Amino acid sequence: MSASLIREHRVAADFIAASYRAGCDEAGLETIEKAADRVLEETGIRFLDDPQTLDMLKQAGGVASGDVVRLDGAELRRIVRRHAPARFLLRGRNPARDTPVGEGAAPVLAPIYGAPNVVLDNGTRVAGSRRIYGELVAAAHAAPGLTNTGQMICVMEDVAEDRRPLEMLLAHLTHSDKPFMGSIASPAAAEAVIDLTAAAIGRPALPGECNLVHLINATPPLTYWPNPLKCLRAIALKGEASMVSSYMMMGATAPVTVAGALIQGYAEVLAGLALAQLWRPGAPVVMGILAYPFDMRRMQPNFGDPASQLVQFYAAELGRRLGVPARGDGAVTSAKVDDAQSGAEGGRVLSAALSSGAHFILHAAGWLEQGRTVSREKFRRDAAALAELRLGRRAEPPAPLERGIEMELRDRIDRA
Amino acid sequence: MSASLIREHRVAADFIAASYRAGCDEAGLETIEKAADRVLEETGIRFLDDPQTLDMLKQAGGVASGDVVRLDGAELRRIVRRHAPARFLLRGRNPARDTPVGEGAAPVLAPIYGAPNVVLDNGTRVAGSRRIYGELVAAAHAAPGLTNTGQMICVMEDVAEDRRPLEMLLAHLTHSDKPFMGSIASPAAAEAVIDLTAAAIGRPALPGECNLVHLINATPPLTYWPNPLKCLRAIALKGEASMVSSYMMMGATAPVTVAGALIQGYAEVLAGLALAQLWRPGAPVVMGILAYPFDMRRMQPNFGDPASQLVQFYAAELGRRLGVPARGDGAVTSAKVDDAQSGAEGGRVLSAALSSGAHFILHAAGWLEQGRTVSREKFRRDAAALAELRLGRRAEPPAPLERGIEMELRDRIDRA
Repeated sequence: MSASLIREHRVAADFIAASYRAGCDEAGLETIEKAADRVLEETGIRFLDDPQTLDMLKQAGGVASGDVVRLDGAELRRIVRRHAPARFLLRGRNPARDTPVGEGAAPVLAPIYGAPNVVLDNGTRVAGSRRIYGELVAAAHAAPGLTNTGQMICVMEDVAEDRRPLEMLLAHLTHSDKPFMGSIASPAAAEAVIDLTAAAIGRPALPGECNLVHLINATPPLTYWPNPLKCLRAIALKGEASMVSSYMMMGATAPVTVAGALIQGYAEVLAGLALAQLWRPGAPVVMGILAYPFDMRRMQPNFGDPASQLVQFYAAELGRRLGVPARGDGAVTSAKVDDAQSGAEGGRVLSAALSSGAHFILHAAGWLEQGRTVSREKFRRDAAALAELRLGRRAEPPAPLERGIEMELRDRIDRA
Repeated sequence: MSASLIREHRVAADFIAASYRAGCDEAGLETIEKAADRVLEETGIRFLDDPQTLDMLKQAGGVASGDVVRLDGAELRRIVRRHAPARFLLRGRNPARDTPVGEGAAPVLAPIYGAPNVVLDNGTRVAGSRRIYGELVAAAHAAPGLTNTGQMICVMEDVAEDRRPLEMLLAHLTHSDKPFMGSIASPAAAEAVIDLTAAAIGRPALPGECNLVHLINATPPLTYWPNPLKCLRAIALKGEASMVSSYMMMGATAPVTVAGALIQGYAEVLAGLALAQLWRPGAPVVMGILAYPFDMRRMQPNFGDPASQLVQFYAAELGRRLGVPARGDGAVTSAKVDDAQSGAEGGRVLSAALSSGAHFILHAAGWLEQGRTVSREKFRRDAAALAELRLGRRAEPPAPLERGIEMELRDRIDRA
């Protein structure tokens, strides 16, 4: 790290330390952007094992050596600002449940994503299953505070891996008519879910509209793995939305300081957002920069730490400057049960997301134990708290899925 | 209420509803101020049974009828902006523990104030006592996250009421050398505590310095009771600090909307802040506008409600525009035990206070059950969370109180 980069870093850190509260400090935000530009130009981002991505980035002016591409941050920002929509409409089977995402819209709230374990109401801890998944989608549908039923609320351990994307799709389509999130199991799965969802929704998508938002994760530090890159491409080409996120552990997979984590996360996510626009100008995107300090003693992230709140405030401002919707986290916690620790950590993270002006809040209900567990009890408590925000509407039972679509989906599942 | 006031109110409500997040919307804040000016001019504030206050306000241009004084809000703002310091130094017996309050300074954190009941570690619920009080002050001293040991952490039920102010003073002076808060039991008690604290600190106060901050509460709606008015005067004349606060229950003692509560609270508190400056130009003050929705079903405030977070954000901005430090609340909750509800409510309130940029955060440790109880366990959990903020320093044991001061204080207590 050169001396001048360290100086820039220090300037960025100072502007944050000067005030706990995110202000309207455009100069400070520009310092973060400029420092990220140096990371992109001098260090570059590693795009693993995806020649098409490397070719596209080279065409756009990137300098590749092996799978590392050095990029022009200012040019990436120009691409994103020129093409990415500041707001798009996410549609559900029920048009009354369509939700705008982005500028001027209320935050979209989706449940926990990716929990392998479930804690039932009797306290039993079980593996996720197809039956529980359906119940969780139904609970997300019934919760007025949740405006999106998400994706992979728990893992369906009793379903073969190849069948899971379509089984989850079937659950979202039959237990709810709210919008939900797409599959990123593979590009083929993403495409299949996109096509079947479009059929279920029926209405043709107008410009500025789409049906699914997909979680595309960078792998910090400064790396994208092949599957997210291939999914990002497939999704963008279909005109569907990607939430390009960097989920950093400060002190482990990212610098330990707020400014350092913002710089790294911005560099990673900016590259992914620009890639989506290169594949399809105007592809809807959401920007996610999230960072939690990693506690070396307990070997787990400190959710709700003030440092992570600062990251959230500045991440939302960076998204605003880029002209794209920003992501936040819901009630995430390291707590093993829904106790005072869980309440305090989750409450602090959700507060920061809401007050930062985040447009899409993931993990908004059910999260326990660093996301390894979805708790039915905490799901209800989180959903009740979210209902107080008055963002959603009371949910009537979902309209039944059209018979033909359901038959086709079940048939595809059998053949998967 | 005239038609045009309703229109102003609606404009104010809309600017808040437009975004969950407090922005830098000076026009919106001005709308709140202007609406408060109409309340001050057309409705006025009731100053109960304190002729000196009425005389002073009349001299300053107020129009009194009975104990209601109609006031010129713009003139009150001029008085406060001209004289009140944006920042002052709050001193402790140990100069290393002096804490700046206000512009550019880290928030000061003080424990719960006013709990009649104590929950001990074994779960027993007891009345507050002199012995427990000393233990709580010692705990506040030992907590690196708390930079002020507060006042009336619990009520000393085993001490005669007249003796309590000096007994509390003795506890703060012997179990800690951090700054603490003054007494508002009566003007005489306030003065006695101020004089004895000055003797214990020893160092003469330079301009911009003082030793004690006092909680002066308006009684919403639009009323001041006599004792706070008399204390405010006595404290200002001694050059000590007053935290002039309005603690509103939205829908009970204040309008149910965010904008309405802000308008009422600003009118109340502006009058008190200006009064302090009229008594002594330059008297240090802190502005507190706090409002929680009152739940009619449970007959208790909803701490941590998003509406109260909005109030906090805009209250801090109103303080900034007035040029005085702003107050926030710590981990306040309606929960009866320190459970997930307690964690979530308290975490959300504290987050809002910190991210609003509040300069003095009261009730930062130990609060349970709407403040009716101080919990030893929650005190430790709150203090541990605050320590993560890295605002304070590790506390060495307090320096012993000078023998002569202690003897005089004990003598005064015996004679009280």
